[in-house]
Amino acid sequence: MKKLLNAPSDVVTDSLRGLAAAHPELRVDLTHRIVYRADAPVPGKVGLVSGGGSGHEPLHGGFVGPGMLDAAIAGEVFTSPVPDQIVEATRAVDSGAGVVHIVKNYTGDVMNFEMAAEIAAADTGTEVVAVVLDDDVAVQDSLYTAGRRGVGVTVLAEKLAGAAAEAGRDLNGVADIVRRVNENGRSMGMALTSCTVPAAGRPTFDLPENEMEIGIGIHGEPGRRRVPVAPAKEIAEMLLEPILADLDFTGGDGSTGVIAFVNGMGATPLLELYLMYGEVAAALQKAGVNVVRSLVGPYVTSLDMAGCSVTLLKVDDELTGLWDAPVRTPGLRWGV
Amino acid sequence: MKKLLNAPSDVVTDSLRGLAAAHPELRVDLTHRIVYRADAPVPGKVGLVSGGGSGHEPLHGGFVGPGMLDAAIAGEVFTSPVPDQIVEATRAVDSGAGVVHIVKNYTGDVMNFEMAAEIAAADTGTEVVAVVLDDDVAVQDSLYTAGRRGVGVTVLAEKLAGAAAEAGRDLNGVADIVRRVNENGRSMGMALTSCTVPAAGRPTFDLPENEMEIGIGIHGEPGRRRVPVAPAKEIAEMLLEPILADLDFTGGDGSTGVIAFVNGMGATPLLELYLMYGEVAAALQKAGVNVVRSLVGPYVTSLDMAGCSVTLLKVDDELTGLWDAPVRTPGLRWGV
Repeated sequence: MKKLLNAPSDVVTDSLRGLAAAHPELRVDLTHRIVYRADAPVPGKVGLVSGGGSGHEPLHGGFVGPGMLDAAIAGEVFTSPVPDQIVEATRAVDSGAGVVHIVKNYTGDVMNFEMAAEIAAADTGTEVVAVVLDDDVAVQDSLYTAGRRGVGVTVLAEKLAGAAAEAGRDLNGVADIVRRVNENGRSMGMALTSCTVPAAGRPTFDLPENEMEIGIGIHGEPGRRRVPVAPAKEIAEMLLEPILADLDFTGGDGSTGVIAFVNGMGATPLLELYLMYGEVAAALQKAGVNVVRSLVGPYVTSLDMAGCSVTLLKVDDELTGLWDAPVRTPGLRWGV
Repeated sequence: MKKLLNAPSDVVTDSLRGLAAAHPELRVDLTHRIVYRADAPVPGKVGLVSGGGSGHEPLHGGFVGPGMLDAAIAGEVFTSPVPDQIVEATRAVDSGAGVVHIVKNYTGDVMNFEMAAEIAAADTGTEVVAVVLDDDVAVQDSLYTAGRRGVGVTVLAEKLAGAAAEAGRDLNGVADIVRRVNENGRSMGMALTSCTVPAAGRPTFDLPENEMEIGIGIHGEPGRRRVPVAPAKEIAEMLLEPILADLDFTGGDGSTGVIAFVNGMGATPLLELYLMYGEVAAALQKAGVNVVRSLVGPYVTSLDMAGCSVTLLKVDDELTGLWDAPVRTPGLRWGV
């Protein structure tokens, strides 16, 4: 295993220490492994909290700041944070307006966020609404999931709900945005190589030199099938086909088009991600799907896995406006 | 070789096509492989042009836009663009105020930019001032270079000179900023793995499973030495030692501190880059170096190489102000 780290057991805390050093505008609680925007709780604003296993950076800690999350909770690599951490973050960002939990659909996360919401409600009367994301069309049930997995749409949900909270919407209004994003967004990923979990020290799975895995999860969970490595144009079609089959993205239901998101899995350089985006954009044009906004880069990674995923989110003018609203986080920033 | 591409010979054009699709606010000339900000030439503004071999994305095409470059010219992977391309870009962005060329110190780039400047001056009277960057302290001469190589400081020079041009400085004023950045900036890189050039189809060099290369170039050129893989803390010290020995970054000469930049080589995930930044920040504090701004991420990559580099740039209030000025490019964006 070749990685830039000290002891594998310290990788999460050491990385959070670096995030804190690079971003003095954030407040990082190294004991509880929580990243806060420095001015949380923001008076009158709904708190927005997410989190999950580490290894997906910039998700979630890199998406904390004005216009996005109030707090992000880091678990061990590929392991849910524990309820105590989630309770701590939830209480800390509650201004009295309540807190929305954005939870990716993995058994551990769902259980621990649920337990934390109950504890926060019982102990301090914090009102929590949780929304579970399950946008991955690759598989129904999988290694860590009952139902679909939560993947790429999480970034879009955190951005759009963050803008809604910043704009002063109430608890249910912010939660509704997350729900709409989940209902209208779908993702599909692929891998050229495995990732290597630091504590394991060896690749999670073996993938022969001439094969790729279609429908991979963000923890190296098996996908739909292994096939020979294909040209980028064919990979784009393989990823889009099940997404386009699952929802109608061609408009006519009040949507004006899609946000098209090509995500890097961690070890795939931008040269290749932009190349993939070109193929995705061409395929969408052919399919009659109108792209109103795009995002290209490594935003929901899987440690050092090489590969990518595609996410499409149907939007209307309201969601597009929330997308364009100012955001200031380490991972996404514009307008400020 | 496992990469997201179609034919290896089309990788640069295909990737530029994707950049164009994702960023309609840019104008991409696929024939000449030039990325322009859409409103170039900007009346009265000095034009800022850079470019070089592809494979370092987002450098340079991802740094085109208001507050940074007016045009970026893409060569083949790890190969200088030809003079004709550079002439084309130079003329196109000249509003009459002249054009600054930012050139990384590689033999091919230096020669071709020089020839292009002469042609542009002779044919259309375009006044060009070129500044060559050579911030890499690792080696004196190397595979593609007489003298030091130009690496990480390029991003900082493009940002700071871009802000100066946007603020209305004249040709020599903008070129002076690039010169100051080069004089006050130093870099050092390392690799855990080789990169693979698409046309070659196999790794540029072999690096045993337990070794890393200290002082690596951004094309896989040999560095100073191969040593056993070490903890991140020690790697940070190995990279900082020759930088701190080469220039005094502790202030007292009018500088208020440094911009500290930890760069990813392409296949190193953010989890590890932030961890490295934490070690760099701690080592700088110990060395009495004041960090006023930071940048962490893959900005000058070397295809799919795993590794990182550290750049320190001495700044005063003027340079810090230029750093903070609004910028809107695919790779760096804030304030707009």
